Amino acid sequence: MSAGWLRVVGNGPAGPDWVTPETTATLAQATDLVGYGPYLTRVDNPGARHHASDNREELARAQHALDMARDGGRVVVVSGGDPGVFAMAAAVMEALDADDEGRWATVDVTVEPGVSAMQAAAARLGAPLGNDFCVMSLSDNLKPWALVERRLRLAAEGDFAIALYNPISRARPWQLGAALDVLRTVHAPATPVILAKAVGRGGDESVRITTLADADPRDADMRTLVLVGASTTRAFRHGGVTRVYTPRSYPEVAGS
Amino acid sequence: MSAGWLRVVGNGPAGPDWVTPETTATLAQATDLVGYGPYLTRVDNPGARHHASDNREELARAQHALDMARDGGRVVVVSGGDPGVFAMAAAVMEALDADDEGRWATVDVTVEPGVSAMQAAAARLGAPLGNDFCVMSLSDNLKPWALVERRLRLAAEGDFAIALYNPISRARPWQLGAALDVLRTVHAPATPVILAKAVGRGGDESVRITTLADADPRDADMRTLVLVGASTTRAFRHGGVTRVYTPRSYPEVAGS
Repeated sequence: MSAGWLRVVGNGPAGPDWVTPETTATLAQATDLVGYGPYLTRVDNPGARHHASDNREELARAQHALDMARDGGRVVVVSGGDPGVFAMAAAVMEALDADDEGRWATVDVTVEPGVSAMQAAAARLGAPLGNDFCVMSLSDNLKPWALVERRLRLAAEGDFAIALYNPISRARPWQLGAALDVLRTVHAPATPVILAKAVGRGGDESVRITTLADADPRDADMRTLVLVGASTTRAFRHGGVTRVYTPRSYPEVAGS
Repeated sequence: MSAGWLRVVGNGPAGPDWVTPETTATLAQATDLVGYGPYLTRVDNPGARHHASDNREELARAQHALDMARDGGRVVVVSGGDPGVFAMAAAVMEALDADDEGRWATVDVTVEPGVSAMQAAAARLGAPLGNDFCVMSLSDNLKPWALVERRLRLAAEGDFAIALYNPISRARPWQLGAALDVLRTVHAPATPVILAKAVGRGGDESVRITTLADADPRDADMRTLVLVGASTTRAFRHGGVTRVYTPRSYPEVAGS
């Protein structure tokens, strides 16, 4: 039996232009691709077997991938974006951590970094994440909502810019509205808010720049990345384009 | 005069394996490369002029790049990692924001996302940033140190994992030690801390996994990315390898 391996990769926020050469090479060597169906269809490897599963069965998917690698497969677990940011790398680590019997002790497991959706959205706008920032998922499938609200409040009190993943879905329709309400208790109404949908996906892309006062959860869907500014984040028009950035410096630091 | 443009790119945390195809193509088209010298020497474009400058002259560098693009150059501003994370995208936006006279109003300016150092470090370990996290620079060149301490405390109180950029340099020798002391007032001594130096750079790479109690700033240098876990972050041994990850779920959520 040949030596199998498991690689956990992300194929970026959109097309191949944002996939690293490391990951492109890994995907080409795969015998088995494991992940959410829409991510697998973007992979250019006609010989690989596809093991598509629903986006919520992450631990079972990780265990299945480890079994196939132990049995000699060159198995690639595919997430969108970066596999380390609200994606499959944590699920694979959970499976290994629970492996008290050493079922997968000989499997070569590595994770490859990728470009995450917040980075594609930030680049479109300028540099909204150019200073200190927090990154949160609004999904309360695995996390108590009270913890989400507490983190939002502390992130706003710390004046971090905030990137919000999984803002809304059919099963979680009210969370984004509740999150914006928490942020409104701390931040000024004019704080910039960006709803960045499907950035990099051609005609599906839409980027809306608004404010905390006016942000409407109905303008977001499950492909939307939400960015909320810090108090210093600025939106401005220049040369016919609206840009958003968070400056590197603070007025109270002399010479900055 | 031909139409110039300005692109702000990052060439990843290390070698070409972590540079996106978009950015590789952009670098190949450049007539002028602007940035910190060590980043420019990694670019494969023998025909481009190099405009290297010290890492602290970011605004002047951005203005110079915009001038060259206005005059017809295909100008690429090069950061390490992702240009939107503690890098040149914010400086270019600041220059545009201050351009009241429209000096650069006709210049086509875009930012390209890249892989940042925290992502390379996280991938090496498993998934330490697999749940909510904060990203901070410890440099107080442009930011009051009191704000850094306040953010550290709030990030720890929110139980975010934390990625720390610019932890230490010859000019800023005490900041990392002070930051760890702030985190020690909130987090347990056993909280995992990772000092990830030059990840991806072959023999220069070193990754140290320790705890908040034992972390020693003397083990970090200016090429080190520091990761501090949340209360749920786990370090474990499996198959002879130490892994670190932050689980997706919390015990109090049923069925997770």
